[in-house]
Amino acid sequence: MRVGVLTGGGDCPGLNAVIRGIVRKGVQDYGYEFVGYRDGWRGPLEGDTTVLDIPAVRGILPRGGTILGTSRVNPAQIEGGLERIKRNLAHHMVDALICIGGEYTLGIAQRLSEEGVNIVGVPKTTDNDLNGTDFTFGFDTAVGVATEAIDRLHTTAESHHRVQVLEVMGRHAGWIAVHAGLAGGANVILIPEQKFDVEQVCRYVERRFAVNYSPIVVIADGALPVEGQLPEEDGTRDFFGRTGSYSIGEWLGKEIESRTGKETRTTVLGHTQRGGSPSAFDRYLATRFGINAVEAVHAGEWGTMVSMRAEEILRVPLAEATKEIKTVPLELYREVGVFFG
Amino acid sequence: MRVGVLTGGGDCPGLNAVIRGIVRKGVQDYGYEFVGYRDGWRGPLEGDTTVLDIPAVRGILPRGGTILGTSRVNPAQIEGGLERIKRNLAHHMVDALICIGGEYTLGIAQRLSEEGVNIVGVPKTTDNDLNGTDFTFGFDTAVGVATEAIDRLHTTAESHHRVQVLEVMGRHAGWIAVHAGLAGGANVILIPEQKFDVEQVCRYVERRFAVNYSPIVVIADGALPVEGQLPEEDGTRDFFGRTGSYSIGEWLGKEIESRTGKETRTTVLGHTQRGGSPSAFDRYLATRFGINAVEAVHAGEWGTMVSMRAEEILRVPLAEATKEIKTVPLELYREVGVFFG
Amino acid sequence: MRVGVLTGGGDCPGLNAVIRGIVRKGVQDYGYEFVGYRDGWRGPLEGDTTVLDIPAVRGILPRGGTILGTSRVNPAQIEGGLERIKRNLAHHMVDALICIGGEYTLGIAQRLSEEGVNIVGVPKTTDNDLNGTDFTFGFDTAVGVATEAIDRLHTTAESHHRVQVLEVMGRHAGWIAVHAGLAGGANVILIPEQKFDVEQVCRYVERRFAVNYSPIVVIADGALPVEGQLPEEDGTRDFFGRTGSYSIGEWLGKEIESRTGKETRTTVLGHTQRGGSPSAFDRYLATRFGINAVEAVHAGEWGTMVSMRAEEILRVPLAEATKEIKTVPLELYREVGVFFG
Amino acid sequence: MRVGVLTGGGDCPGLNAVIRGIVRKGVQDYGYEFVGYRDGWRGPLEGDTTVLDIPAVRGILPRGGTILGTSRVNPAQIEGGLERIKRNLAHHMVDALICIGGEYTLGIAQRLSEEGVNIVGVPKTTDNDLNGTDFTFGFDTAVGVATEAIDRLHTTAESHHRVQVLEVMGRHAGWIAVHAGLAGGANVILIPEQKFDVEQVCRYVERRFAVNYSPIVVIADGALPVEGQLPEEDGTRDFFGRTGSYSIGEWLGKEIESRTGKETRTTVLGHTQRGGSPSAFDRYLATRFGINAVEAVHAGEWGTMVSMRAEEILRVPLAEATKEIKTVPLELYREVGVFFG
Repeated sequence: MRVGVLTGGGDCPGLNAVIRGIVRKGVQDYGYEFVGYRDGWRGPLEGDTTVLDIPAVRGILPRGGTILGTSRVNPAQIEGGLERIKRNLAHHMVDALICIGGEYTLGIAQRLSEEGVNIVGVPKTTDNDLNGTDFTFGFDTAVGVATEAIDRLHTTAESHHRVQVLEVMGRHAGWIAVHAGLAGGANVILIPEQKFDVEQVCRYVERRFAVNYSPIVVIADGALPVEGQLPEEDGTRDFFGRTGSYSIGEWLGKEIESRTGKETRTTVLGHTQRGGSPSAFDRYLATRFGINAVEAVHAGEWGTMVSMRAEEILRVPLAEATKEIKTVPLELYREVGVFFG
Repeated sequence: MRVGVLTGGGDCPGLNAVIRGIVRKGVQDYGYEFVGYRDGWRGPLEGDTTVLDIPAVRGILPRGGTILGTSRVNPAQIEGGLERIKRNLAHHMVDALICIGGEYTLGIAQRLSEEGVNIVGVPKTTDNDLNGTDFTFGFDTAVGVATEAIDRLHTTAESHHRVQVLEVMGRHAGWIAVHAGLAGGANVILIPEQKFDVEQVCRYVERRFAVNYSPIVVIADGALPVEGQLPEEDGTRDFFGRTGSYSIGEWLGKEIESRTGKETRTTVLGHTQRGGSPSAFDRYLATRFGINAVEAVHAGEWGTMVSMRAEEILRVPLAEATKEIKTVPLELYREVGVFFG
Repeated sequence: MRVGVLTGGGDCPGLNAVIRGIVRKGVQDYGYEFVGYRDGWRGPLEGDTTVLDIPAVRGILPRGGTILGTSRVNPAQIEGGLERIKRNLAHHMVDALICIGGEYTLGIAQRLSEEGVNIVGVPKTTDNDLNGTDFTFGFDTAVGVATEAIDRLHTTAESHHRVQVLEVMGRHAGWIAVHAGLAGGANVILIPEQKFDVEQVCRYVERRFAVNYSPIVVIADGALPVEGQLPEEDGTRDFFGRTGSYSIGEWLGKEIESRTGKETRTTVLGHTQRGGSPSAFDRYLATRFGINAVEAVHAGEWGTMVSMRAEEILRVPLAEATKEIKTVPLELYREVGVFFG
Repeated sequence: MRVGVLTGGGDCPGLNAVIRGIVRKGVQDYGYEFVGYRDGWRGPLEGDTTVLDIPAVRGILPRGGTILGTSRVNPAQIEGGLERIKRNLAHHMVDALICIGGEYTLGIAQRLSEEGVNIVGVPKTTDNDLNGTDFTFGFDTAVGVATEAIDRLHTTAESHHRVQVLEVMGRHAGWIAVHAGLAGGANVILIPEQKFDVEQVCRYVERRFAVNYSPIVVIADGALPVEGQLPEEDGTRDFFGRTGSYSIGEWLGKEIESRTGKETRTTVLGHTQRGGSPSAFDRYLATRFGINAVEAVHAGEWGTMVSMRAEEILRVPLAEATKEIKTVPLELYREVGVFFG
């Protein structure tokens, strides 16, 4: 059996641990050979491969990033892209393909699967917003980085009588903001699932000062204020930071400062949340995802992806990954709301 | 409503986060008053209380330990112990008691509950061996400490051609060993659920050297060799380190060295696994346990304890905690076994 | 002996360790009483004090921030400010004042000392740019935070073929950039001591891509390009982030992206560098500064500040702190330059 | 120019950073070729070499251990050992040798240098006990690991009313114990430079309990009690843990428990102090040592080793390393003594 492996989409701590789990399990237990495809879908599209054997995965467990590289190349948008992938897989005598990625990467995987390619998926999203799995690897590491930043801002906030705004990842779902905000003891948590009223945020901030303590506001980079508060000409930048002058966190910081008169500092965590050594939990989860992806290949369960339920690793249809995303339930958001005051 | 709170049993990162969650939720949303009992069951037994209000819980979220103190005092073994507790609760006009603790602490809670005391439990075990909940707080922190230690031993192992043995917590269940061992890339993982054969461990160790790499062995402190390998006169010490000369990890290290002739170093992590700032996950889980314990009090659901299922916090009967413990399934142990080789 | 203590200027990890060192040494060895002044010079100016005894400093060693608070209030710019301070010190029966702060705080201390107030200084600057001492506390912690961020960016850079720009503290001196840049293996390090040519930076960046690796650029927030490269209307923001649209790091990131066509991400570390638990080195240094400040008071060596030379703590004239700042020697900058290529 | 490189003695965080600094500086600035010798002096003794070029050192900066391996092989104790080394160096056409190691490794280097071999040394000792340099790399990382352990023990100590003993490295000098003990807020610090009286330690411990707080005792593994307290038959184990039943820390823990009746736990940090990613300071120092070792080779300054004075890297005679070791001055030990009480 020859199995191709690729990693697509954004960087995410734990990708190397998945790759290592796949290769060690496959080689040791089933004698598989592996073909590494470089830079996500670009690899099978252009036939760009790399050696993927036991020595290649030595020592990569604690390392962030992916030895296979990644990209956002979308073969579905390229004339004849999917056909070229199928031809290249055949040319490399690849019997099955393990795709590690998020919504987009697994969406392509799903289409190839429907067209008869033997595919097993491994879900990946730092934002933890994928249906069909309790947790995804990378999320715990990102929450840890964000929580450490809140811890650090606390001491500055205490000494300086200043508002601190921290922008964390969370394009469509506020999981990182909610977990890190609760773990770090933030006073206000703003998420994409619930539009916020800048005036109300300012009132919270002032209430905190009244009880003699500096407030910390955590905001997901996909959060938005209610209609009309964000001026047209000041459109915040998108996920890739390219369209506007400010991120939503920077905008909020300026609004708080001008509306309350309180000195406000904003920190945008950015890519530091996606890099570095994965946490113990992420390495554990990623390794087990890798092992179980090979088991799915061995069982010929094409068109599935691995998923986690408590301590169990299950297989669910690939389509689960591309259905609607998993957002923070308003019930949970309200539950943690006790700490806004 | 006046609510007593106590923490019993061993130390565990996240206890303060539970206490803070309880007090902030109870005071802000329901106007409760709280009575802190000192040192586990010793507090209500001797009527030893401490102030437990909003200022008392300020800043304790990221701190290990418990501001209430803890002990292993067992009122069930003291003549009239339970009666004295009931009298003291009445004397302090306490309407309900929130007990944070493991098997023993919640066992007493269960008995008092049966005798009509209004009790809500919060499960606590660093070993993660409690039924009725996916995870308990403190476990993730301990796994993190153990994984970091394995990371550190790896580099020494690589440079020095030596066997490294790491003893981690796990009296009755090997969860920490399995999680940290997999996350850290250990070569052998030994747990209480499965007796090990020292000869087989030595063969693994030698096989690792054959592929030119130094082996790392992770052993839970409750793991034991098969019948006959542990000499009578060399009985390993118990959990509290007092009965024998060696811990099981130290014994194993000496056996490996004498049987294989390979220099072997043993590190016993001990209490460093139970202290320090809780991880982001543990703070999140502990805070939500605290909030939901207050909700259980508010709902009058006596005799229950809070528990976690994915992102949901549920209530299960207190008795769940004292039923048989949750051990590592052999299926999981075998799954991760690929990395033994 | 009654001794006042104050902390002025920006936040800095280790302030609490100094305070604790002062109080424990003073109370235990010399029976001193202490008066804590709140928020830097605002405290003695307005007579705002707080209790400062052994219980007040319990547990603060590992904590960032300052229990005394801090501010940038400048009594020299307030009509009769210095006189009011002297009156308040007399009113509180304070025999000597220990001032913990940077250039500005110690500049005021120097003037009060010249006017006969018994003053001992403790130097503080996260940027490590103070003359008269090998190191200042807080610097090692900031370098650690910046280095960890570079480590994290490396893995993203490797996976994604992108330029990463990291802006770190360093208003007038590039010590943090040089230390963290070297420790983290950055490819370009830009500091205030040497104006940089954007074109040359772009050529370095392109050269890195040519050897198949993504470049990391570390820039101190006080670094500037050579004359004419920074457009008038795009003036970068000042230290407090308020005058312009971009920080220098953000500006550089945009320039690199537009000039090289390579996707570029910028992370501004900001206040996370000043907060959080101080590193072991900073706690050690800060504690010894505190102990030795009390020895200086005991010896009546007014007008001096404590300073570090290897393992020795010395006393130097307060004026040392306010002389020209300690910048990175061009020789050292050139030495580490090997790693630019 | 062909330059050999070897690393000898115990493991130490930063060795890889030195190697990387040497190779990048040598190749980029002077076009040197390098020969890596494996496992300390065993390499040149047996002619065992490995490739050492730019790709070989890629990514090793943040990694502990040494890619060259290390050993305690002593060619001076092998018949004709030094002659064989000289022959092998000539055979490999090695013009100069950079030796990274401690007292023993540099002692051999010194002898070879006297016999005409072109040698430059880089000092290495985790214990920081080498003369002729302010600091050695690896020390800061070890102090960080020990301080984090003390932080963790504090929370357990607070909750449990127990004595905690922590044994850290320090065979002949107590630098790690003093730095980590002060940084962590230990109550008693015991070092090899000053024999301790077990009775006095017990009195300190009891005094701590009297002020309602659990004591933490830090002891260097080379510390010893005053004459007569250590029973003959209970001789503590040596540095390599092989001669006796207990380490000195374990012995002390048992003594405290039996003499005071207070429950006592001992943690022996062991090899976790020598492994793992080096701290930012150690990476900076190690990289600069590497760069400057190449400068010393370029300048033909044979028989010297690099050394650190504040921010300057100097060259001192190799013999400095093998003169008497640098111990903790009693004055410093007394200074920090304020915190014993």
